[in-house]
Amino acid sequence: MRVMGIDPGLTRCGVGVVEGRPGAPGTMVAVAVVRTDPEAPLAERLLALDDGLRALLEEHEPEAVAVERVFSQHNVASVIGTAQASGIALLAGARLGLPTATYTPSEVKNAVCGNGTADKRQVTTMVTRILRLKEAPKPADAADALAIAICHLWRGGVKARIAEATARALASQAAPTRRGTAR
Amino acid sequence: MRVMGIDPGLTRCGVGVVEGRPGAPGTMVAVAVVRTDPEAPLAERLLALDDGLRALLEEHEPEAVAVERVFSQHNVASVIGTAQASGIALLAGARLGLPTATYTPSEVKNAVCGNGTADKRQVTTMVTRILRLKEAPKPADAADALAIAICHLWRGGVKARIAEATARALASQAAPTRRGTAR
Repeated sequence: MRVMGIDPGLTRCGVGVVEGRPGAPGTMVAVAVVRTDPEAPLAERLLALDDGLRALLEEHEPEAVAVERVFSQHNVASVIGTAQASGIALLAGARLGLPTATYTPSEVKNAVCGNGTADKRQVTTMVTRILRLKEAPKPADAADALAIAICHLWRGGVKARIAEATARALASQAAPTRRGTAR
Repeated sequence: MRVMGIDPGLTRCGVGVVEGRPGAPGTMVAVAVVRTDPEAPLAERLLALDDGLRALLEEHEPEAVAVERVFSQHNVASVIGTAQASGIALLAGARLGLPTATYTPSEVKNAVCGNGTADKRQVTTMVTRILRLKEAPKPADAADALAIAICHLWRGGVKARIAEATARALASQAAPTRRGTAR
């Protein structure tokens, strides 16, 4: 399964594409940063971000999009721009009919470092190790986007297996009940 | 000039279209609210909002889009959704190549009520009066969107006149200078 992780930002938006499956190390497909000019009018920046993300989605054809969830605890001055960028990212995925998911920063850190309060350096180290890269991914601020993609592959996989098992259990329970009702 | 005012919100996004020019009372062309299901996944809601705004833009063909600016002083729990909705609104306008503008709530209140701290009731009263409506616009929460459109018509007009006058003044100054340089 191929996942595009997006670390939303208006000035720098990290994008990381990872191919893999739950429980196995993944492979890095691409890593990029979409930049917009902080001096440009807001609508122009949002359009440039949307164009950039659409081009990357078209190029790498992921099967799912995972976006870091914006928190109100973030720096209040930057939270609005980050929220707008995350909205554009989720819309870009949904527009293509792709499943989307959001993860909190601590869910992402927990997934790749086993520690929800890991720092940026630890995340970069673990992403480099998990994806068996020769050196830390560049641009550096895209390591988080790769971590988000890995988080989705691993957690999403677990979630999907649980959902599947639950559905099977319910189906086997439901069958006699349904026969019962038919009597 | 026809302006679409947008009062961004994820659950209820107010839209008001006004035709007019600076210094003259305007005419209401349309008023609507785009609603999205609070229970639906975020990406689905953003897509529904984008679809709704695009349909209204296509139907009413405004020449400009004005969106209320999101403030970090807003309720922190709702600011992220409001910021995402405003991003979608600005993108929808920019995607069509329309000029976009943002105004703070107090700029809007000042424009229609002459008072930056006017309450919701006063804004509705003044919008009804300015647009010479027989009764307050419905749905009620779209009155703000009409106020944003009126604000843009009036303030945008003043701004455009100042820009034009400045350009004329600069041109008349620049002409002899250019001749001077040519000597």
